[in-house]
Amino acid sequence: MSDIKSLALACRDAAQAVAQLSTEAKNALLQAMAQALLDDADAILAANARDIAAAETKGIGSAMADRLRLDPQRLGGIADALREVASLPDPVGLVTRRETRPNRIVVERVRVPLGVIAMIYEARPNVTADAAALCLKAGNGVILRGGSEAIHSNTAIAASLKRALREAGLPEAALTLVEDLRRETILELLQLTDIVDLAIPRGGEGLIRFVAEHARVPVIKHYKGVCHQYVDAGADEVLALRLLVDGKVSRPSACNSLETLLVHRDIADGFLPKAAQALRERGVEIRADERAAALVADAKPATEDDYAAEFLDLIIAVRVVDSLDEAIDHIRRYGSDHTEVIVTRDDAHARKFVESLRSAVVMVNASSRFSDGGELGLGAEIGISTTRLHSYGPMGLEALTVERFVVRGEGQTRNIP
Amino acid sequence: MSDIKSLALACRDAAQAVAQLSTEAKNALLQAMAQALLDDADAILAANARDIAAAETKGIGSAMADRLRLDPQRLGGIADALREVASLPDPVGLVTRRETRPNRIVVERVRVPLGVIAMIYEARPNVTADAAALCLKAGNGVILRGGSEAIHSNTAIAASLKRALREAGLPEAALTLVEDLRRETILELLQLTDIVDLAIPRGGEGLIRFVAEHARVPVIKHYKGVCHQYVDAGADEVLALRLLVDGKVSRPSACNSLETLLVHRDIADGFLPKAAQALRERGVEIRADERAAALVADAKPATEDDYAAEFLDLIIAVRVVDSLDEAIDHIRRYGSDHTEVIVTRDDAHARKFVESLRSAVVMVNASSRFSDGGELGLGAEIGISTTRLHSYGPMGLEALTVERFVVRGEGQTRNIP
Repeated sequence: MSDIKSLALACRDAAQAVAQLSTEAKNALLQAMAQALLDDADAILAANARDIAAAETKGIGSAMADRLRLDPQRLGGIADALREVASLPDPVGLVTRRETRPNRIVVERVRVPLGVIAMIYEARPNVTADAAALCLKAGNGVILRGGSEAIHSNTAIAASLKRALREAGLPEAALTLVEDLRRETILELLQLTDIVDLAIPRGGEGLIRFVAEHARVPVIKHYKGVCHQYVDAGADEVLALRLLVDGKVSRPSACNSLETLLVHRDIADGFLPKAAQALRERGVEIRADERAAALVADAKPATEDDYAAEFLDLIIAVRVVDSLDEAIDHIRRYGSDHTEVIVTRDDAHARKFVESLRSAVVMVNASSRFSDGGELGLGAEIGISTTRLHSYGPMGLEALTVERFVVRGEGQTRNIP
Repeated sequence: MSDIKSLALACRDAAQAVAQLSTEAKNALLQAMAQALLDDADAILAANARDIAAAETKGIGSAMADRLRLDPQRLGGIADALREVASLPDPVGLVTRRETRPNRIVVERVRVPLGVIAMIYEARPNVTADAAALCLKAGNGVILRGGSEAIHSNTAIAASLKRALREAGLPEAALTLVEDLRRETILELLQLTDIVDLAIPRGGEGLIRFVAEHARVPVIKHYKGVCHQYVDAGADEVLALRLLVDGKVSRPSACNSLETLLVHRDIADGFLPKAAQALRERGVEIRADERAAALVADAKPATEDDYAAEFLDLIIAVRVVDSLDEAIDHIRRYGSDHTEVIVTRDDAHARKFVESLRSAVVMVNASSRFSDGGELGLGAEIGISTTRLHSYGPMGLEALTVERFVVRGEGQTRNIP
């Protein structure tokens, strides 16, 4: 048997033990993990320094180096995040529905863990702790496969978390860090359909496509967030402007940031010049269609590619549309099923926008930036799904479980011969 | 573009229209479809006669011929099933949760259709109508790929159902029957990740493995049902016997029938001889481990393969265990995550059995044969999942939808710069 298969099988066995832990035991474990990270701060920061040094030798960009870097404050933040997960409600064992059938069998739907979750991610070492905490809290085993650039940091963090597992009398394999980063090893991991219940890739589109294209295990993912804001005729312009600036500028690198602004022709004359000025003042480059360009000084022309792009930068595509229907058609054509916003005073238009679009998150008069597990009330976020299966949109603890059936009877039979 | 891709794209476009239909419109459509089948009975039965004739020429077995055969009564049953789906509650648009966040945005979870569902199935022509009805009721487009043995029947049924779509002013492509049955065509269909949201294979294990192994689109499936009944020490023997006979004999070809009986050693002496007699009287062959064989006259010895087998026949494997733990270990080792039964008077044992096993359906003192969408209250069943993702156990209309987020605000922003 290959090493990775042995590791995965051990994780599956260990997951059986995690699945049966009480909420109290899981919360105590997460608290102990938080403390272990703080206790091991020196070792973790030293390991991180090795990653940073290696990265600088390779000449990575400053953005990448920043994502990679840990310091005492950031490590404290990671520990706090573990304690935060400990404080969240436990989805496991939750009875979501109960029905007594005509024959008096009692049918319950009860949440159970998925089993073994493989996280495939890049750069940020905090994912090692965050993902482990969420998977374990939901009763799962977790296989962590981070990027080579963070291998020392991830190894040190995992060692610390595994110590907490060990000290709690639990099998360490419940948290398995893959230290063999060869391509063939990850490929093999993604084929283990009888062992791995779900793979969640987090990182750039390249990583996610690699996982989605090679996995035989189920994958939940989103490739990109091409989020739209549509400003309807008669919308409150001040409100539309605020949502636009928040959506585009507050964190352009986030997947829930706006990439395209659609404006109804009836409001374009008044709104677009003001919107363009507000965006420009904040350094945003505007790529406009012909009608929008006529209202915006010095706009670059928008191309087809711009409409489909996730800029992840201070750039926005702008288009004037003739109707709500045209806005809906545009979003259906170019959207990524992530998050869409309508700004309107018309309830019927809001309803039509919501019902016509099947994106994971649709906002009426609220910022696209609320498309986030924490903001939507999930407590924490393990990822975002734009796959319309199992989970759609930001995924919290509940998305790491599934409902099954528990039936209680008194000897009922169906059709005894 | 290939033919199958064109068909699938047309289905996706048509699915947009179906997704927005009111419950009333969908129910009227299903009623019209039921009527269309009855109106076209002559054509459908003539087409079915061609399939039967071709099958007889090929020399298929009588069981297969029976699955394939339609008559006026069976066709009436198919029409009734469509009307039954019309009467079920509509999951689409259901608001499952609503929360007002501290910043006063209102976050709703709302059920939306999955999109396009590909059904891959064999033999029984009723699946063509049943699957179409369930997918359409849940607001989806459906691509139907039945077996070559039923191609004339399926084509005639689909033509009838499409007429009802057309007469309701809806795009026929919402129901797409694949008439090109070449292997490369189904393989291509299963690669269309941007078009097909879910594939559901129904049929023998060979078909299901083919779909699971070749699909890049998500697949929900179960390979087989190796269902266990464990009779605990101190169980009510009369009750245990009734559940055993119902579970094994009432329909041995069903996936929710029992394959293995596990008996606690403390009750084996009294229970097993009676159980064996009751099974024998009903023609059931017993394959027993050594200890069970000592209590059962003329039992064949059970092999490792027998414990893992879905017999789909009047055969049962029987094993004596020393404890509840040993029963749980046996089920974990040989089970298929489908359905398990415990017969016990001990609540703590029942709880331990339920919590230790993560099978899709766990029964306490009730027949394994209730592991069925209709019996569990789902109204109808499109399939059964033993994949712990999206849906686990019998799948009804709800499993053909997913929850997304709808947020309503009054201009709230997250972090306006």
